[in-house]
Amino acid sequence: MVTRAVLLDLDGTLVDSVFQHVVAWDAALSGGGYEVPLWRIHTGIGMGSERLVPWLLGGYPENLDALSKAHERAFLDHAGELRPTNGALALLDDLERREVPFHIATSATEAVRKALLGALGREDLPTTDADAVDSSKPAPDLLLAGCDALGADPTDMTLVGDSPWDAEAARRVDIRCIALRCGGFGDDRLRGAGAFAVEDDPLALVGRL
Amino acid sequence: MVTRAVLLDLDGTLVDSVFQHVVAWDAALSGGGYEVPLWRIHTGIGMGSERLVPWLLGGYPENLDALSKAHERAFLDHAGELRPTNGALALLDDLERREVPFHIATSATEAVRKALLGALGREDLPTTDADAVDSSKPAPDLLLAGCDALGADPTDMTLVGDSPWDAEAARRVDIRCIALRCGGFGDDRLRGAGAFAVEDDPLALVGRL
Repeated sequence: MVTRAVLLDLDGTLVDSVFQHVVAWDAALSGGGYEVPLWRIHTGIGMGSERLVPWLLGGYPENLDALSKAHERAFLDHAGELRPTNGALALLDDLERREVPFHIATSATEAVRKALLGALGREDLPTTDADAVDSSKPAPDLLLAGCDALGADPTDMTLVGDSPWDAEAARRVDIRCIALRCGGFGDDRLRGAGAFAVEDDPLALVGRL
Repeated sequence: MVTRAVLLDLDGTLVDSVFQHVVAWDAALSGGGYEVPLWRIHTGIGMGSERLVPWLLGGYPENLDALSKAHERAFLDHAGELRPTNGALALLDDLERREVPFHIATSATEAVRKALLGALGREDLPTTDADAVDSSKPAPDLLLAGCDALGADPTDMTLVGDSPWDAEAARRVDIRCIALRCGGFGDDRLRGAGAFAVEDDPLALVGRL
């Protein structure tokens, strides 16, 4: 596996946070009077709030901002329980040691992004979050911002993600996507969205990117 | 779809509880000093505690009972937030109206089973739980107990479940399994475990069993 530069997703890829997001969105949506099955919420994780909520509700609610804030609060209430995914810190060390350029591209808001980096103990990592671009995944804006930050062409990049939305965003701009199972998405959905390889978790990629 | 009698799973199939189980197991295992990735916990949901914990930890821990109790407490703390899956109540009504014999077979403990039936508002439903048999799914004990309760032969039964463990238990005793996506398991895993059909949720089965 030869890679010039690496883009990394954060939620579900480096931090074991997807199931907490599902439960936090359930609390936010229920509080707003919407009942959405939790498996449907799960299938939307990886998009930013501004895409996830209309996708789940079938249209833009008037209280989109309030729902997003309620989700953020519910998620941050349990931020102390977050852990890195298996091998996340080892993969970051490995990339740094071998001087592989990398950048984190996340659909999280700035506040959630900070909590996630805190769970890694790596607030220093180079990151672009959803608050810094017009549109979150599966739009490619975050990935292109990461390419710009690294001064690299999309076709020289590999994205490591965990959701079909990562794979779809990457496919739109000819970035290879390696998808990880540790976000809880099935192989068929990850490959169907365009992932060219599927592995369990970051540990499987140490020494290989 | 002609069916003589129906076995129904409860967690994830009639009640939207799988993601809460994942988070409750994470709390119990973390509290016991074990760090298990949440996607791995998710893949084990559907087994009873006595099978799930050794499967996740690679062996029987001395404190298995304490871990199971901690999970039960963490889960029951949020039992008030549980909702039926989409169409669960309609499917139960449909089976009763058309006089299709059915029985619920669940890997839940008695306390969790009561909370789940409470979330349905149907404490009267005929049910066999894990506390009533020697071994939970994927062992077929619960399904065979359900057949006995209905006086029906396994080959005349259809099980409606949501997890690969339901499908595997059914396959072992030649019961057809219809698997639902509403527990968050992927089509490939459900079919791989032996499900002969996959649908979104109970609503898809109303009028068809």
